[in-house]
Amino acid sequence: MINLFKILFFNLGRILSFLYPKTLSQVIESILAYTYTGVHARFFNSWGSYSSMAWGCRVTNPQYISVGNNNVFLRNTAITVTPVQPDHSPSVTIGNNCHFGIRNHLTCINRIVIGDNLLTGAYVLISDNSHGTIEREILDTAPFDRPLVSKGGVYIGNNVWIGDKVSILPNVHIGNNVIIGANSVVTNDIPDNCVTAGIPAKIIKQL
Amino acid sequence: MINLFKILFFNLGRILSFLYPKTLSQVIESILAYTYTGVHARFFNSWGSYSSMAWGCRVTNPQYISVGNNNVFLRNTAITVTPVQPDHSPSVTIGNNCHFGIRNHLTCINRIVIGDNLLTGAYVLISDNSHGTIEREILDTAPFDRPLVSKGGVYIGNNVWIGDKVSILPNVHIGNNVIIGANSVVTNDIPDNCVTAGIPAKIIKQL
Amino acid sequence: MINLFKILFFNLGRILSFLYPKTLSQVIESILAYTYTGVHARFFNSWGSYSSMAWGCRVTNPQYISVGNNNVFLRNTAITVTPVQPDHSPSVTIGNNCHFGIRNHLTCINRIVIGDNLLTGAYVLISDNSHGTIEREILDTAPFDRPLVSKGGVYIGNNVWIGDKVSILPNVHIGNNVIIGANSVVTNDIPDNCVTAGIPAKIIKQL
Repeated sequence: MINLFKILFFNLGRILSFLYPKTLSQVIESILAYTYTGVHARFFNSWGSYSSMAWGCRVTNPQYISVGNNNVFLRNTAITVTPVQPDHSPSVTIGNNCHFGIRNHLTCINRIVIGDNLLTGAYVLISDNSHGTIEREILDTAPFDRPLVSKGGVYIGNNVWIGDKVSILPNVHIGNNVIIGANSVVTNDIPDNCVTAGIPAKIIKQL
Repeated sequence: MINLFKILFFNLGRILSFLYPKTLSQVIESILAYTYTGVHARFFNSWGSYSSMAWGCRVTNPQYISVGNNNVFLRNTAITVTPVQPDHSPSVTIGNNCHFGIRNHLTCINRIVIGDNLLTGAYVLISDNSHGTIEREILDTAPFDRPLVSKGGVYIGNNVWIGDKVSILPNVHIGNNVIIGANSVVTNDIPDNCVTAGIPAKIIKQL
Repeated sequence: MINLFKILFFNLGRILSFLYPKTLSQVIESILAYTYTGVHARFFNSWGSYSSMAWGCRVTNPQYISVGNNNVFLRNTAITVTPVQPDHSPSVTIGNNCHFGIRNHLTCINRIVIGDNLLTGAYVLISDNSHGTIEREILDTAPFDRPLVSKGGVYIGNNVWIGDKVSILPNVHIGNNVIIGANSVVTNDIPDNCVTAGIPAKIIKQL
């Protein structure tokens, strides 16, 4: 009975694959991305030419975010900015020609500055903040209710390639021409022209 | 031609952004979450007041799961319970005021007990079981067909903060007021008032 | 007011849970998977009996991919093949009875060969390529524009179990009956009958 269902719907799918070619689905996806970009772009502090944001991306407080030209945000990327510091506006600045993979998360209360030509894999986290400082009386409270604090901004140079599932934590300067291996956690500065990997990320090659 | 399409749909999006304001989309998402919660809540062993489950969460065997008050499950979190142990019901118990990030996965055949005020990042795995024991003749079989076994339950205290992409493996007791760094894998017990990180997670600060 | 909404839609959800039982939603999901499989299967180099691909999987250049029998690809898995090497066709070959978890990503420009009975967790990356070699003048260019290169294919034996969030990098042979712990990064060969974990993955048990 189940096999009959399988065969029936499998063959229905085969027929659909002739009626609805893949190129058509790609055109529709592009159109959705263009439209979705238009929905969101006017709320940004600035939004460069030919930058696009795929369907399902989420942005909080885009008025603090500046995006250059020719950037691509793939599906389900989130950029969340929260203005919590008194006398200090948070800001996210993204250069030109950056390419963010699926399901990245940028979270900012202080400052995230990204240069040109960044390439990221999937599930990358870039955060300049954490839930509370590490003190005995803070740890006794609910993490969600701890005040967001920032040890410092995140600064990323040009031509940086960040692998899948990397987490970049607050107060980090990443130089130009850096490669960060998959699954790494970046907690310290990385100089120019380096390959780094691990938890915490260590330099495994410097050119 | 492609640029014409881009400009056309980009501006269509701009117009839509006036017709369909973001606050409306947030109201609709809340309504979907309330409804989705109502769809699932009655199947749980218990479901506390003001706990909510976003659209796309998945639950297997909710009759073994008890959820306290004021908990939040963000999108696409999965809780899968499988009763495989003879003479022993699995159970998942979640306290109050916990906040699960997107795409968490709790998988239970034995016992998962979570206290109050848990905060988790995205892509967190909490598992009390694995596919088979590590014996020569077991390894010769297909992992999917190996019997699920549990070395012990997972117990998580109060005020715990679990970073993005953390995996918590079976037979682990995590104390109160613990912080677990992003991308860590927890395989050993963690005492109260600690910060841990790494694979396997080690204590990097104790207060 | 918000509480009134919550109560209203929560109870609407309860009513819906009687009208639309879970088993019905599971039947519909199965039907969608059969249909989606049928849409894609005819484009593959070969597609075995009873292999299925859930809604939302993405495939690039399926004509280079051979899939055996009884394989399961869960939601949002992507297989991307790119023919960039002159005089050399890329190929992905998957045996029988493999079970890929949600949101896996296989990316191939050279060769990925997977045996029988593979089981993977969620967010697993299997890649035989990278963006450019590690040379000073290459690092000065945009990562996205660097030519894709492969140090060697990825070969995975039979009865292998790969944990959540594992990344498997190019030029790696993984033996039979191997277990790879959650969050690991595999950069070296793994012999038969091993348990490995860490970044980079090291043997923690050999039988």
